[in-house]
Amino acid sequence: APPAKEAVCRACHGDGGAKPIMDVYPKLNGQNKGYLVAILKSYRSGERKGGQSAVMNAQAKMLSDDDIEALATYYSSQK
Amino acid sequence: APPAKEAVCRACHGDGGAKPIMDVYPKLNGQNKGYLVAILKSYRSGERKGGQSAVMNAQAKMLSDDDIEALATYYSSQK
Repeated sequence: APPAKEAVCRACHGDGGAKPIMDVYPKLNGQNKGYLVAILKSYRSGERKGGQSAVMNAQAKMLSDDDIEALATYYSSQK
Repeated sequence: APPAKEAVCRACHGDGGAKPIMDVYPKLNGQNKGYLVAILKSYRSGERKGGQSAVMNAQAKMLSDDDIEALATYYSSQK
């Protein structure tokens, strides 16, 4: 089953991160786990700017390291 | 055939953007075209910070709008 906080991500990135609701949002399915962890932490710290960072800074601030690990593992394994 | 400047991208993101040489670099194959265009322009303008932005700012500065369009079209269509 997906990690607890996956429902929040699904709202914009779609089921398994494969169907973002907007073309300017990235697909997450099958993405590199190390990239997802690094980028979520960069959004969480506020270091990540540009693109949709305002939205993502707010979302990532609610994630613990364990949440990030679980979400990155989940999405990197999605087809 | 891939766009002219694809060889530069391939150095880090691999063939068709599917095999990045480091886990912290993103896969590009099948990514949303609108996302790729928005992010490349955000790197080019220097607005995009965090992650590997230093590397990508330098790369994106060498791209014209047409290059970005061609690369985003190419990578979004890769399996």
